[in-house]
Amino acid sequence: MKKILIVNGPNLNLLGRRETDIYGSVAFEDYFKILKNKYKNIELEYFQSNHEGALIDKIHEVGFSYDGIILNGGAYTHTSIALADAIAAIETPVVEVHISNIYKRESYRKHSYTAVNCVGCITGLGLKGYELALQFLLEN
Amino acid sequence: MKKILIVNGPNLNLLGRRETDIYGSVAFEDYFKILKNKYKNIELEYFQSNHEGALIDKIHEVGFSYDGIILNGGAYTHTSIALADAIAAIETPVVEVHISNIYKRESYRKHSYTAVNCVGCITGLGLKGYELALQFLLEN
Amino acid sequence: MKKILIVNGPNLNLLGRRETDIYGSVAFEDYFKILKNKYKNIELEYFQSNHEGALIDKIHEVGFSYDGIILNGGAYTHTSIALADAIAAIETPVVEVHISNIYKRESYRKHSYTAVNCVGCITGLGLKGYELALQFLLEN
Amino acid sequence: MKKILIVNGPNLNLLGRRETDIYGSVAFEDYFKILKNKYKNIELEYFQSNHEGALIDKIHEVGFSYDGIILNGGAYTHTSIALADAIAAIETPVVEVHISNIYKRESYRKHSYTAVNCVGCITGLGLKGYELALQFLLEN
Amino acid sequence: MKKILIVNGPNLNLLGRRETDIYGSVAFEDYFKILKNKYKNIELEYFQSNHEGALIDKIHEVGFSYDGIILNGGAYTHTSIALADAIAAIETPVVEVHISNIYKRESYRKHSYTAVNCVGCITGLGLKGYELALQFLLEN
Amino acid sequence: MKKILIVNGPNLNLLGRRETDIYGSVAFEDYFKILKNKYKNIELEYFQSNHEGALIDKIHEVGFSYDGIILNGGAYTHTSIALADAIAAIETPVVEVHISNIYKRESYRKHSYTAVNCVGCITGLGLKGYELALQFLLEN
Amino acid sequence: MKKILIVNGPNLNLLGRRETDIYGSVAFEDYFKILKNKYKNIELEYFQSNHEGALIDKIHEVGFSYDGIILNGGAYTHTSIALADAIAAIETPVVEVHISNIYKRESYRKHSYTAVNCVGCITGLGLKGYELALQFLLEN
Amino acid sequence: MKKILIVNGPNLNLLGRRETDIYGSVAFEDYFKILKNKYKNIELEYFQSNHEGALIDKIHEVGFSYDGIILNGGAYTHTSIALADAIAAIETPVVEVHISNIYKRESYRKHSYTAVNCVGCITGLGLKGYELALQFLLEN
Amino acid sequence: MKKILIVNGPNLNLLGRRETDIYGSVAFEDYFKILKNKYKNIELEYFQSNHEGALIDKIHEVGFSYDGIILNGGAYTHTSIALADAIAAIETPVVEVHISNIYKRESYRKHSYTAVNCVGCITGLGLKGYELALQFLLEN
Amino acid sequence: MKKILIVNGPNLNLLGRRETDIYGSVAFEDYFKILKNKYKNIELEYFQSNHEGALIDKIHEVGFSYDGIILNGGAYTHTSIALADAIAAIETPVVEVHISNIYKRESYRKHSYTAVNCVGCITGLGLKGYELALQFLLEN
Amino acid sequence: MKKILIVNGPNLNLLGRRETDIYGSVAFEDYFKILKNKYKNIELEYFQSNHEGALIDKIHEVGFSYDGIILNGGAYTHTSIALADAIAAIETPVVEVHISNIYKRESYRKHSYTAVNCVGCITGLGLKGYELALQFLLEN
Amino acid sequence: MKKILIVNGPNLNLLGRRETDIYGSVAFEDYFKILKNKYKNIELEYFQSNHEGALIDKIHEVGFSYDGIILNGGAYTHTSIALADAIAAIETPVVEVHISNIYKRESYRKHSYTAVNCVGCITGLGLKGYELALQFLLEN
Repeated sequence: MKKILIVNGPNLNLLGRRETDIYGSVAFEDYFKILKNKYKNIELEYFQSNHEGALIDKIHEVGFSYDGIILNGGAYTHTSIALADAIAAIETPVVEVHISNIYKRESYRKHSYTAVNCVGCITGLGLKGYELALQFLLEN
Repeated sequence: MKKILIVNGPNLNLLGRRETDIYGSVAFEDYFKILKNKYKNIELEYFQSNHEGALIDKIHEVGFSYDGIILNGGAYTHTSIALADAIAAIETPVVEVHISNIYKRESYRKHSYTAVNCVGCITGLGLKGYELALQFLLEN
Repeated sequence: MKKILIVNGPNLNLLGRRETDIYGSVAFEDYFKILKNKYKNIELEYFQSNHEGALIDKIHEVGFSYDGIILNGGAYTHTSIALADAIAAIETPVVEVHISNIYKRESYRKHSYTAVNCVGCITGLGLKGYELALQFLLEN
Repeated sequence: MKKILIVNGPNLNLLGRRETDIYGSVAFEDYFKILKNKYKNIELEYFQSNHEGALIDKIHEVGFSYDGIILNGGAYTHTSIALADAIAAIETPVVEVHISNIYKRESYRKHSYTAVNCVGCITGLGLKGYELALQFLLEN
Repeated sequence: MKKILIVNGPNLNLLGRRETDIYGSVAFEDYFKILKNKYKNIELEYFQSNHEGALIDKIHEVGFSYDGIILNGGAYTHTSIALADAIAAIETPVVEVHISNIYKRESYRKHSYTAVNCVGCITGLGLKGYELALQFLLEN
Repeated sequence: MKKILIVNGPNLNLLGRRETDIYGSVAFEDYFKILKNKYKNIELEYFQSNHEGALIDKIHEVGFSYDGIILNGGAYTHTSIALADAIAAIETPVVEVHISNIYKRESYRKHSYTAVNCVGCITGLGLKGYELALQFLLEN
Repeated sequence: MKKILIVNGPNLNLLGRRETDIYGSVAFEDYFKILKNKYKNIELEYFQSNHEGALIDKIHEVGFSYDGIILNGGAYTHTSIALADAIAAIETPVVEVHISNIYKRESYRKHSYTAVNCVGCITGLGLKGYELALQFLLEN
Repeated sequence: MKKILIVNGPNLNLLGRRETDIYGSVAFEDYFKILKNKYKNIELEYFQSNHEGALIDKIHEVGFSYDGIILNGGAYTHTSIALADAIAAIETPVVEVHISNIYKRESYRKHSYTAVNCVGCITGLGLKGYELALQFLLEN
Repeated sequence: MKKILIVNGPNLNLLGRRETDIYGSVAFEDYFKILKNKYKNIELEYFQSNHEGALIDKIHEVGFSYDGIILNGGAYTHTSIALADAIAAIETPVVEVHISNIYKRESYRKHSYTAVNCVGCITGLGLKGYELALQFLLEN
Repeated sequence: MKKILIVNGPNLNLLGRRETDIYGSVAFEDYFKILKNKYKNIELEYFQSNHEGALIDKIHEVGFSYDGIILNGGAYTHTSIALADAIAAIETPVVEVHISNIYKRESYRKHSYTAVNCVGCITGLGLKGYELALQFLLEN
Repeated sequence: MKKILIVNGPNLNLLGRRETDIYGSVAFEDYFKILKNKYKNIELEYFQSNHEGALIDKIHEVGFSYDGIILNGGAYTHTSIALADAIAAIETPVVEVHISNIYKRESYRKHSYTAVNCVGCITGLGLKGYELALQFLLEN
Repeated sequence: MKKILIVNGPNLNLLGRRETDIYGSVAFEDYFKILKNKYKNIELEYFQSNHEGALIDKIHEVGFSYDGIILNGGAYTHTSIALADAIAAIETPVVEVHISNIYKRESYRKHSYTAVNCVGCITGLGLKGYELALQFLLEN
């Protein structure tokens, strides 16, 4: 039974409540329940933190035993070399996801420290992006 | 019955033959047949050209009647404002796809003129990226 | 009898249909008819292409015999050294025209490769800009 | 009866006397007389100053009652945010004019603080540019 | 009764002890007591942390119920998009404060990620800046 | 009796009339009367000019005898080294004020030549910023 | 019998006619006849196009069977990642040639996207550069 | 008896396990035991955290009483002004150490926020760098 | 009898009073008297203004009849293209002088718009620089 | 009898011994003997130095009497304005040669101070490049 | 018996005499005697030159037979690609040493061309840095 | 009796022979004789070298005993931190001289590493600049 972890970075705990014109009005916990229900034959877990260090700790913890990580690093995507180093240090493949199309936003959101160490990246396809990443990890 | 067009830009006609360590060894035509077979209840078409103008002409042609375009602009992704303007000018939603993880390559491949006018972008997930884009267009 | 060619670059075939808040709602063909009618004592021609190479071919073709070229290079204005070289290579004077005020838009639209080889440039005065360019070419 | 003001910035009082290979040998006052004569059914005025503040004062003075301003900001075009702010602050439409093709000169002349707040810009068409701007303001 | 939170970022716990020529010799806790005493008819709270994540957590916690936040993000002002996103995500207005004049220091201190999402910013007016921010929040 | 001068730079004479969504709809003269009334035990003066040189002259004039200057340099904040030098040359402390949050506007408004020579800066707190600056100057 | 293709990019069809102070007064077709005559024991072919896509198509066509390509990409040298990708995709070695010394011209002509994928480059040695490239390809 | 603290930043807990071609195959805990054994007449302590805030807290804690700190800030070296400020705020001298030669890696690793506030820096000499730093702190 | 004008720009009226560690403690008027006395056989004049426009007006006024201008543009040296244009527009040779060594100060003082249009420049040699410039103008 | 000098710059004395994967395994002295033997009817000389000054001295020495110089400036190509000035100062034409394709290496090797003053440049064609340069100098 | 060479670059011959607040007051020759005395069982040599070429010559001379080089390239560290190439060309490992903390000085001293080709680098630890480098070379 | 040394850098030995439109047609040796004759009551010496190291050696040699150095570093002005360090290391004051107006030439000639460590700089006043520098050194 495959084990997949979804990791959400800073401010994504406010999803559905924060800037709903950019991020939509669904809380991630609600979306996660639907996803978990749809993909019952895998162990699907969810972790969110606003702490860069906590995200790194978690990635270290699962990064040598899980089958895949889906990472939305939020703002740390653009500033955290430490998070990028953590992805490079582990063995589990990571797929990066962004809910909004980061190319339409501030120019500093176009730079990703983490993407270079991930398998690939899905951007701008809303919450659907998490499911597509999941499908990729299950089939590859 | 939904109509979706896959558009491949310059040098992608050499897929399976060109730099196989980066792009894999499957020709796109072969992959397209499998995809078409799997998604029988839609009209799925394929267009490839090395000509920037021909890509623009094609996007104009289908961009007011089709339900979705999956675009791998190849190198024009990074240099063509004209292609980006074409996407902005039409009504059909466009999803950008890149086979390889462009963040791992030359720095000039990190810039995308076209992505800002697309709904979103899937990068680095191989040929699978086309199918995921298709799923997004069918469900959204 | 003076011979003047108006050349429109990529996506300008969609004028009146594309982003009407920026470009207005009149198709260029309709505007061209009015212009032709108003300036009957000159040979006024019109050429549009989305192909950079086709624009260059056309400029070569008329550039040693016509009395003036009015060029709206569209997006190629900002990216095409080849188009700029074509203007430098011919003898016919070229006036650059942009319908919208390019200074109000994306920063990459502020750079023009072609303007340096033109006589001058008219920007932001709508379709009227073509007529003003025409007047300049007729009187100078 | 329409009221239009032509505003010339620093060093343009030396026109016809200064760097005649770039700017031509006609003094602006002489040109203005011809123009005034040709367009008798409008109130056409002329103001020149080498003082940034005086240009701003003048633009404030007429900017809520005149029908149009034709502005050649000279060197202040490239350095004066204050002048640009003045244009943004008033209601009268402004058309920017440059006698020489600024794209052929020092790179710092390619940047215009003022153009973004003007309706549009005519560059490189010599003194004729003022008349074309006038026509635009009269017809729009 | 209005509720206002003062948030201090990294190293501000050493105030009065650290680089006293730049930051002065008063510990913030002592200053806070004086302030609290002076503004008795409001609920004034204080939070300090060296952890970016803890600052974000706190801002989330109070950001939908308090009447104002006074934020001295310290070094995170210049590096934390996550902190800036947190301010954008909440409803409570935030005023940014810096004790020293950041324009007189290293050039990287001139950039603020957070200020753009705050109402405004008070810089270089010492500890007095906190009180002025407080007055603004109480009167607006 | 303390003497304080408020200096407003270019275009601030149009306050209440100009871009009211950014700057509000109160003319500065009206606000100044209220302020003068509220702070009767000081000599409070007001000076506005669109001329860089006039602002410098004024700062020289009062800069060795007044107790404080509150300066909103307007656009000259971003372009005038001469104004910055004037502040460095005098003895009276200067507090910089901006009505709007300059971090939310064009990127060139983030740079301040003058702030480095001022005691500090208050930005984005509306007309209230002038009063807060006044309080600082009176108490320090 | 070795097969070598010479490929000339945009505006090189005007050689001998265009900016003769930079490029000389010999048409390339005339030079090619001389060259062909001198090197009779090889199959020497010539292709010119102003179309980026046509150049790519041609390079694909011969790039897996010919013994060498001599490429003067003209302006596309500096702007076309697509052309550079085409060179990387094929097996035939490519030598880049420029007639004029590109280091003496506009700074944007110093950058070459294509050179990095070529074996080497000959610049500024006039039409003679083509023959030297030919010699290299024949002897290596 | 001298007290020296070794501080390791993010991902250095994976040493010996992570990218062993860059960092070697010895876990830091094993190396630390050897070092502690060799330098018995000092109090040598070790602290590692992936949390920027925890590193700052620790530096504050020991920074006014210990005789030296050896800091390998890992990725925070390149991004954390907060960590740099912490070093500037304390009294204990800090020597920066990097195991790999950061000049041979990504360009963003060449920039160090922290080094400017340290006594000096040892780079690229492997784990031996820690011991050399220790010798410096004991002898100076 | 030769006519030479010394022009001093903004803040130089405070010489001897302003930042005396940089500029020395002699007022320019006193120095000018000594200079005038020493060079009796020439018409030596002095003009100072804090107004960019006034400096330009003065340069226009004397620039077609005097034998030389010695210009210390002060801060306008670094920001005024208008002043630079004025120098280019006149016939009288101009020598630029700076009292302090501008290379030892803020980096933006290293750039001079005006120097390119002057004959040459003397920097950092104190008030003596004016006399050396005078000698040059008298002997050349 | 024509006189040609080959000048090799720093580290090229180690050719055949240094980084043989980039530069090949033939010592330049051996190659030079072959070349000299092949071109017997010219005076062909060779000079190598690691000293920038010695290269300049040599170029001065022969630069008014020889018929051509073939210069591989090595690393000084990218850093020496003095060497570039020396080439500009002499009358003998200089052809620049690089053994490896400098476009495939570190980005700082793409900049050449010297090339702008040479006739042209041959890059990436190995030792053969020297012979091609020789042929050019003999025939032109 | 191991052979180690210490190489000092430009101006280091003035050590103890030059800017003693930065570099200390001990002449290197005196320090070298102490070092030589302490490490008697190795052949320790010293070479200093202000000539870039002489440093390269020396490195070539010993670089295939000695066991280690300790290099303080002085100012050439920041400007000499030729010196960096010399280090890359030899077989002997090189450790870079700087006496002062170059991160605390002019920004151009932060860039090192040579470090990338050295094993590692010791900065800011004074003359002690040479001894630490020596220890590293003896033990590795 | 005062001792002054004139130091000329690379290519200045060709003065009068090299690019005479920029540098004039007088050899420096001839000019030096005239100067020596005119200033008989001082020991005036002259040194020229194309070697950066030789210039540094000379500056060290005289820099603790002479009364002044007049330095025209030629191209090393723009590239040599080592030469700049040499000037900073000595006690004799140095005045920098450039014959041509370096602001009118290539942009890289506007940067001077050496000027910051000199007393001041005279530029563009031809050979006369050496004499003016001499006068300054004699009178200060």
